[in-house]
Amino acid sequence: MSTSNPPSVISDSRFDPSFTSHVIAATGPNASPRARKVIGSLIQHMHDFARENEITIAEWMGAVDMMNWAGRMSDEKRNEGQLVCDVLGLESLIDEITFKLAAETSSPATASAILGPFFRHDAPELPNESSIVHGVDDGEITYMHGIVRDLKTQKPVEGATIDVWQASTNGLYEQQDEGQVEHNLRGKFRSDRDGRYAFYCLRPTSYPVPNDGPAGKLLEILDRHPYRPAHIHLIVQREGYKPVTTQIFDSEDQYLENDSVFAVKDSLVVEFKKIEGNEKAVRELEYPIHLRPVDGKV
Amino acid sequence: MSTSNPPSVISDSRFDPSFTSHVIAATGPNASPRARKVIGSLIQHMHDFARENEITIAEWMGAVDMMNWAGRMSDEKRNEGQLVCDVLGLESLIDEITFKLAAETSSPATASAILGPFFRHDAPELPNESSIVHGVDDGEITYMHGIVRDLKTQKPVEGATIDVWQASTNGLYEQQDEGQVEHNLRGKFRSDRDGRYAFYCLRPTSYPVPNDGPAGKLLEILDRHPYRPAHIHLIVQREGYKPVTTQIFDSEDQYLENDSVFAVKDSLVVEFKKIEGNEKAVRELEYPIHLRPVDGKV
Repeated sequence: MSTSNPPSVISDSRFDPSFTSHVIAATGPNASPRARKVIGSLIQHMHDFARENEITIAEWMGAVDMMNWAGRMSDEKRNEGQLVCDVLGLESLIDEITFKLAAETSSPATASAILGPFFRHDAPELPNESSIVHGVDDGEITYMHGIVRDLKTQKPVEGATIDVWQASTNGLYEQQDEGQVEHNLRGKFRSDRDGRYAFYCLRPTSYPVPNDGPAGKLLEILDRHPYRPAHIHLIVQREGYKPVTTQIFDSEDQYLENDSVFAVKDSLVVEFKKIEGNEKAVRELEYPIHLRPVDGKV
Repeated sequence: MSTSNPPSVISDSRFDPSFTSHVIAATGPNASPRARKVIGSLIQHMHDFARENEITIAEWMGAVDMMNWAGRMSDEKRNEGQLVCDVLGLESLIDEITFKLAAETSSPATASAILGPFFRHDAPELPNESSIVHGVDDGEITYMHGIVRDLKTQKPVEGATIDVWQASTNGLYEQQDEGQVEHNLRGKFRSDRDGRYAFYCLRPTSYPVPNDGPAGKLLEILDRHPYRPAHIHLIVQREGYKPVTTQIFDSEDQYLENDSVFAVKDSLVVEFKKIEGNEKAVRELEYPIHLRPVDGKV
């Protein structure tokens, strides 16, 4: 016979102990089960947070003002509400959750959601050995290449698409920046019969997240810097394989250990090597890609 | 010798167990102790919420869109971010917390914060027996009166100010409504040498909170109605006494049990009695007020 302790109940609150259950119980019979569960849990956490910290009206109104400020700043080119979540680590955590669910369920809809705000479905298809860099004078051109292989057989995979996008040296993606040409710093490549892909891109550079709004205010209050370490976004897809969506980070970047939005994972850190003798590039990144086969058609 | 169990640690998460402490530890050395505590707790609750419910990117982006929408709707006359909190019970809870802190600390700054968004410091001083109702045809005029007494001695208190404000029959306060004259439905009265105050106001009516924005969307998702029960706001002040800030609710209101913003407390429910023979009013509310003396000057 095993013994077990009942879950302990925290009953030492100085505030009305039935209030939160009263608010949660107001949910009507026609709410969906998911809305009932998620919003009920949200109410419980919000109320526990307020009681545990004895949040005052002045503090709460300060937070409401920041929330409204975030909405006023947001438009098609800027999502400040998202950025506020990012600097609190929420996007990175939800990425992890969604990746895990996608790995377990093979849902294409879930997988495509983790592309982030700057992906575009209509990136131009480009031949191998071409460049995605246009009109950038102050970056280090990098020759990025590698072989796409089947994770099980290790044989080269032909016809995989490698979709790549990155920010310019000013920290902006082309759709955020009127100074960049359409589709600058993005392109879609295809592995050849030897599984090989190759293109020219920028060695990415670290940049601050926009800090003239509430996310920046939050960073200031927390005594934190706004910088993200340099990175390149990739999604690799091939029928019969699980898609791979990832960001890869420069091993020499000074913000690797303290990314302002907490997206770095050790496995994603790569080395941009100095090269000589290539008249188009001063750095090289060899990046092998392994695709996991799925059973049956995707 | 007493036995005690160590606090149990929830370690069965499917997700990186060190991520949240990593985010909290990013707070810099110059953050204030209060910001460190409160925002650290906020991060912990946000992350626990996301993990417990396995929030997906699609769900999170839906919430971010609603947050940004709230900000875009907000201006001097409307605070939608506040309203979103209200329908989740947060304002009412934070009122309770702040009231309790105010009662314990006697801080005038804390006390004045609980006046709510529609209070105005510049309400007109009016003589007793006058009316605060202008240009409202569809309401029941109420004769509200009572005696202000010292809670300890039960003797009448002369010279207390009774600041009153209420919404019109369309559910709007005057500063929200271009159809109402400046300072409509608000006034400041003073108790006479017998402690007596008296004025004419509206019998308040229930009204829906604005539901054309994200707060309304949230109510719809939760299968809840948007109505608030009818109420009148009061603040009573006199040097040497603790100020009293309150809302009083009509005992016959159909939404007393399910206020959409959860502000009703049993002690605040009052009866608007039918009267005859007063040519200015059809209802009467006798409302005695007791003020608690403070030691020393405020």
